[in-house]
Amino acid sequence: MKLAILFGGASFEHEISIVSAITVKGKLKGFDLSFIFCDQDHRFYLIDDAKMKAITFSRGEHLKMPQISLVKGGFEQRGMFGSKMHTMPILNLIHGGDGEDGSIAALLDFYAIPFIGPRKEASMLSFDKHYTKWLANSLGIKTLPFEAITQATRSSITTPYPFIVKPSCLGSSIGVSIVREASELEYALDVAFEFDKVLLIEPFISGVKEYNLAGFSARGEITYSIVEEPQKAEFLDFEKKYLDFSRSSTVAEAEVTDGLVEQLRNAFRKIYTPLFEGALIRCDFFVIEGEVYLNEINPIPGSMANYLFEDFSGGIQKLLASLPSKKAIRVQYDYIHSISQAKGK
Amino acid sequence: MKLAILFGGASFEHEISIVSAITVKGKLKGFDLSFIFCDQDHRFYLIDDAKMKAITFSRGEHLKMPQISLVKGGFEQRGMFGSKMHTMPILNLIHGGDGEDGSIAALLDFYAIPFIGPRKEASMLSFDKHYTKWLANSLGIKTLPFEAITQATRSSITTPYPFIVKPSCLGSSIGVSIVREASELEYALDVAFEFDKVLLIEPFISGVKEYNLAGFSARGEITYSIVEEPQKAEFLDFEKKYLDFSRSSTVAEAEVTDGLVEQLRNAFRKIYTPLFEGALIRCDFFVIEGEVYLNEINPIPGSMANYLFEDFSGGIQKLLASLPSKKAIRVQYDYIHSISQAKGK
Repeated sequence: MKLAILFGGASFEHEISIVSAITVKGKLKGFDLSFIFCDQDHRFYLIDDAKMKAITFSRGEHLKMPQISLVKGGFEQRGMFGSKMHTMPILNLIHGGDGEDGSIAALLDFYAIPFIGPRKEASMLSFDKHYTKWLANSLGIKTLPFEAITQATRSSITTPYPFIVKPSCLGSSIGVSIVREASELEYALDVAFEFDKVLLIEPFISGVKEYNLAGFSARGEITYSIVEEPQKAEFLDFEKKYLDFSRSSTVAEAEVTDGLVEQLRNAFRKIYTPLFEGALIRCDFFVIEGEVYLNEINPIPGSMANYLFEDFSGGIQKLLASLPSKKAIRVQYDYIHSISQAKGK
Repeated sequence: MKLAILFGGASFEHEISIVSAITVKGKLKGFDLSFIFCDQDHRFYLIDDAKMKAITFSRGEHLKMPQISLVKGGFEQRGMFGSKMHTMPILNLIHGGDGEDGSIAALLDFYAIPFIGPRKEASMLSFDKHYTKWLANSLGIKTLPFEAITQATRSSITTPYPFIVKPSCLGSSIGVSIVREASELEYALDVAFEFDKVLLIEPFISGVKEYNLAGFSARGEITYSIVEEPQKAEFLDFEKKYLDFSRSSTVAEAEVTDGLVEQLRNAFRKIYTPLFEGALIRCDFFVIEGEVYLNEINPIPGSMANYLFEDFSGGIQKLLASLPSKKAIRVQYDYIHSISQAKGK
């Protein structure tokens, strides 16, 4: 089964995408894998299997590998004596900008290349945490209250301390701070505004239970991962998350009641169907006084959340065999014909 | 001033995009124009100025013109003896799918080609009428109540007759019906489901006042068009709208009070800023009992709503000189360096 892992991207999460790709490479069994690196200038390179190491990219060694470009149906490699086509489905593993903001989905869809990953609309709604709340609320799923602020409104925050400051459009905890008192505020805002023009302010509730659940749909049925209770640092900073993207050993299942598992799965299903079809996503939930709250949607989770699945390779195979297809629109030129006829030409 | 009009697309609105492009060509003075046609298979062609007629495309004559492809910074035309680059800003005039759903915006952004038109996020939120309501409501702008239905929920509509049935993601009145009684329902739903998987049901309020207002922002200031009271068919069907896309003569300003103009402009400004920067959009409003309601956002209005502006060419020049630019992200490989060092290699 052919599959190309697409990673890198012009994003603050470029490096963790590399780590993620290397990890997934080690976990996918029974595939004929290839590797496509997208650099920060949006050039694509076909990477040697043997060169799939982080230092290949930090040392710029990818520049010596074949450059390829997106064309209808695949990637084209031009050479001295003509060009060669690389056609295979893609696993979109570009985290953050490009990969999760809908750009890569739009490109692959436009060029009719099948791919595992969120479609552009799903990307957009999960990439911006603000829109994720609209989505969740429209589905009857609770989220924490929030304020959205910009540089112009930074001094008008009304959420009481302590609260969390997050860039609206980034994952991986980049730029996120807990602000406990006024003296910490300005610095936290300055840091977050480095990454985004819009920030979300949410109440920080200490001791809240967190649960992660991943899954995907194939042939109309959702395969759920185990429920994970993530590691209990107050929240993961970027370096810890970075290491997190290289996780490959299966984690222990959280000790939760069947009833809670059912509640989490219900919320997952409502969010996933049909918007996220074609993707393996992870939803991160809070449970507060027995109620499930959506914290965020990871439409391309670090290392594809392989550590939450018993049969990760088998899951990816099932998903690959069940990708959504876009209905082609055929243009008939009926109106132009009827108008030209009416005009007599 | 160089500018390429991009039109066509794999969309139900392919033909009206052609008509729209021909109209805008006739209205833009003082530009060095070129024309790029996107066919239903997503191939791009550079169209001769003299061949910018509807029958060129319905007869397939574009197939004889140079094919070009998207590359970093522009469009590349390959020939026997090397390739030629076409670099110029783009006016995105692909209506409906591709153009208004964020695909073209994502492609042009990815390849760093400046363009007039909604960015991908703005496209997504205006293309799906469902999301437009979320957006408007989050800004404190009223919209009509609605139900979203799918094939699975088509028999559970609770909105009382008469109501309007609309595909969630189409413009130009395609697939739209007024349903006055139960006997008309099934046919109206069948027609609309031809075009989309999700339909919106909205109450039909007869005699409601409709006003359209277009505008764009350049150098931090919004230029508003005149307010138009659209032609009072109950609503425009596709053929009427089709002709509408070729409108080129300035319309009469609606007879409205200064207070209402101010209300419409306020609503426009809230919607436009900052999401729609780079685009010239038209917002269609209802006024019910003195209150302004957003009906829909046309992020690429037919023939760029040229007929609503006194100085259309001058406006496009101003907009072109003030396009938003994306902040480039430079990757430093700090984490990979620090981890490689920690590992001692």
